[in-house]
Amino acid sequence: MSTPKILILGAGYGGLVTAVRLQKHMNYNEVDVTLVNKHDYHYFTTWLHEPAAGTLDPDKCRVSIESLLDTNKVKFIKGTVKEIKREEKKAILENGEELSYDYVVIALGSEPETFGIQGLKEYAFSIRSINSVRQIREHIEYNFAKYKMEKRPELLTFIVGGAGFTGIEFVGELTDRIPELCEEFDVDPSVVKIYNIEAAPTVLPGFDPELVNYAMEVLSRKGVTFKISTPIKECTPDGVVLADGEEIKSNTVVWTGGVRGNAIIENAGFETMRGRVKVDEYLHAPNHDDTFIVGDSALIINEETNRPYPPTAQIAIQQGENLAQNLLAAIRGGQMKPFVPSLKGTVASLGKGEAIGLVGDKKIYGSTAALMKKVIDNRSLYMLGGLSLMLKKAKL
Amino acid sequence: MSTPKILILGAGYGGLVTAVRLQKHMNYNEVDVTLVNKHDYHYFTTWLHEPAAGTLDPDKCRVSIESLLDTNKVKFIKGTVKEIKREEKKAILENGEELSYDYVVIALGSEPETFGIQGLKEYAFSIRSINSVRQIREHIEYNFAKYKMEKRPELLTFIVGGAGFTGIEFVGELTDRIPELCEEFDVDPSVVKIYNIEAAPTVLPGFDPELVNYAMEVLSRKGVTFKISTPIKECTPDGVVLADGEEIKSNTVVWTGGVRGNAIIENAGFETMRGRVKVDEYLHAPNHDDTFIVGDSALIINEETNRPYPPTAQIAIQQGENLAQNLLAAIRGGQMKPFVPSLKGTVASLGKGEAIGLVGDKKIYGSTAALMKKVIDNRSLYMLGGLSLMLKKAKL
Repeated sequence: MSTPKILILGAGYGGLVTAVRLQKHMNYNEVDVTLVNKHDYHYFTTWLHEPAAGTLDPDKCRVSIESLLDTNKVKFIKGTVKEIKREEKKAILENGEELSYDYVVIALGSEPETFGIQGLKEYAFSIRSINSVRQIREHIEYNFAKYKMEKRPELLTFIVGGAGFTGIEFVGELTDRIPELCEEFDVDPSVVKIYNIEAAPTVLPGFDPELVNYAMEVLSRKGVTFKISTPIKECTPDGVVLADGEEIKSNTVVWTGGVRGNAIIENAGFETMRGRVKVDEYLHAPNHDDTFIVGDSALIINEETNRPYPPTAQIAIQQGENLAQNLLAAIRGGQMKPFVPSLKGTVASLGKGEAIGLVGDKKIYGSTAALMKKVIDNRSLYMLGGLSLMLKKAKL
Repeated sequence: MSTPKILILGAGYGGLVTAVRLQKHMNYNEVDVTLVNKHDYHYFTTWLHEPAAGTLDPDKCRVSIESLLDTNKVKFIKGTVKEIKREEKKAILENGEELSYDYVVIALGSEPETFGIQGLKEYAFSIRSINSVRQIREHIEYNFAKYKMEKRPELLTFIVGGAGFTGIEFVGELTDRIPELCEEFDVDPSVVKIYNIEAAPTVLPGFDPELVNYAMEVLSRKGVTFKISTPIKECTPDGVVLADGEEIKSNTVVWTGGVRGNAIIENAGFETMRGRVKVDEYLHAPNHDDTFIVGDSALIINEETNRPYPPTAQIAIQQGENLAQNLLAAIRGGQMKPFVPSLKGTVASLGKGEAIGLVGDKKIYGSTAALMKKVIDNRSLYMLGGLSLMLKKAKL
């Protein structure tokens, strides 16, 4: 009998934790594990609002994948997955390479969901990778420099579409960064405008209203103009047109309004809702015991609320931990354990020293919440790369 | 009799040295001196190739004008000169303010000379002010970030039009900066192209051929492609078209091909050649004993070569020194002294640790020349603001 082959597609939180947990618990030569990722580094998706605004060095938000692997146990391939042929049990990379598997872990993350809003794809930025956030940061700085030459106010009007978690955290960072940029480029701060536009009747939909009010108050005080219950109708090269007909001129629109599962999964023939596959309690794709899906592309319903769990790093990490154990159980002929998300709380940052959150049932605010946010960020480093990664990248 | 009014328009090297030398030699209330400048800072024009490439902080290249003035002797007005009415002895600012004078010192610097090449004005950058070089720096960085998203090679093709002093010094800095940017943005250095394009049959026209060869060798080795005897026919949003029909795609064209005198002077009715006024030995505009012109807008013929002296900081500073003395002589009824340029040598930097130059009759190269370049840069600080400015901004 040949060694079973596990192929992990994607080294985001879900895929990477699956790989490092497998390598921890497996024996040498017991399984043939291959991890494939587009870049040779993993990035901390939940931190990306910071380098996007320019408040954190993007290199602080990534780590070399091989530095986390025991390459005698897990083989790493830098490559971009193009296609999954589920009947042939193969993944095809963009360079034509074909990787066969006995088990595949699809951890390919998400794509921006534009809800059919015209022009978003063409003209708006997204916070989704190291490359994309470096572009946003450089774009913002370039617009400050350009403003000094051209004096057009739309160069310093920043529109953030979507006031969910990422949108709110990003405007929080912007309010910290903009005074620094005004200083650097000799710009009168009153010229700079930040709009956060949200279609839902509240920012941070799903959050406790008391926390929402606190967040809006802090951010408004720092200069953010909120437009809630205000869908964006269209994004153009000149800015956005709102559903009520208002046009806001802006050279920088950042869309944070939602994500959907990676299109590769849909293209492979799996049934999806917004690109996400409803997985069973073992994270199997329906009717495919050889296919597991974790992270942003996996859809799990929260029985309590009867709504899907939001795609978070917390759940992706828990899925990776569970799945590594279950894969070994399957191979060893043991019993798999159902995946049960354990929600430990959520904290949204509002810039330096300010945050809001829920830890268990407890609402937290201000500097306490900001401290808790750092604890959470540092804990996820520990989950990915142990003490050594935490020491290297920890937020102090 | 009322106090004579001296109005100095522009705080570049020529205007600023005139002002600080006047304040040194004048008595309180002997003259009413006003210095007008667009910004409240003076910048070191000859250093601007460095912040343009991103190798030096732009703030290192400027100094608050008021910090150099004894405001009991020299009044500073931040304002942009729009017009000079020579018959009414008045300068008009953009905000409508009118400033009358008994003597005016026109030190308004230069503008890019595009020689009628189509599209340069619209699509090329110029190295001409703190604001313009911050834009070039940010533009370059933005193009690196954008390249990672779009992979279009023209984003990392940099064209420098003109291989005179500024062009050569700028490409020298670029060759230092680009490896840093490749590192920062994970870009393969072989993707980046730097072209230096010059219409004349040599780079650094007028320089010693041995020095020219040395410069081309150093810069070619560092990755610059030279195209000499190659006029640019047109600059477009996509790059440049050369006289021989070749098209080079580039998102970044920096034009350093020449300067002309500030158009305000021509518009005031003075006879000009490329915007420059041929001044007499006392720096008078022809037939206007109340009007002095210094710096890039003053044209003086070098009797030895029968060609105009090139517009340099060195000559502008010497003119300011001479003119301050002559203005006081005129007011006190003394004898004015003719201005005689004293050329102490020229050094062109080729990036970190490399330069070429002529000091007296001696050719210098490499690290010796690079050291001499710093000595010259630091000396000009001393001329402008004494020991205290030198200590603050010196290049080490």
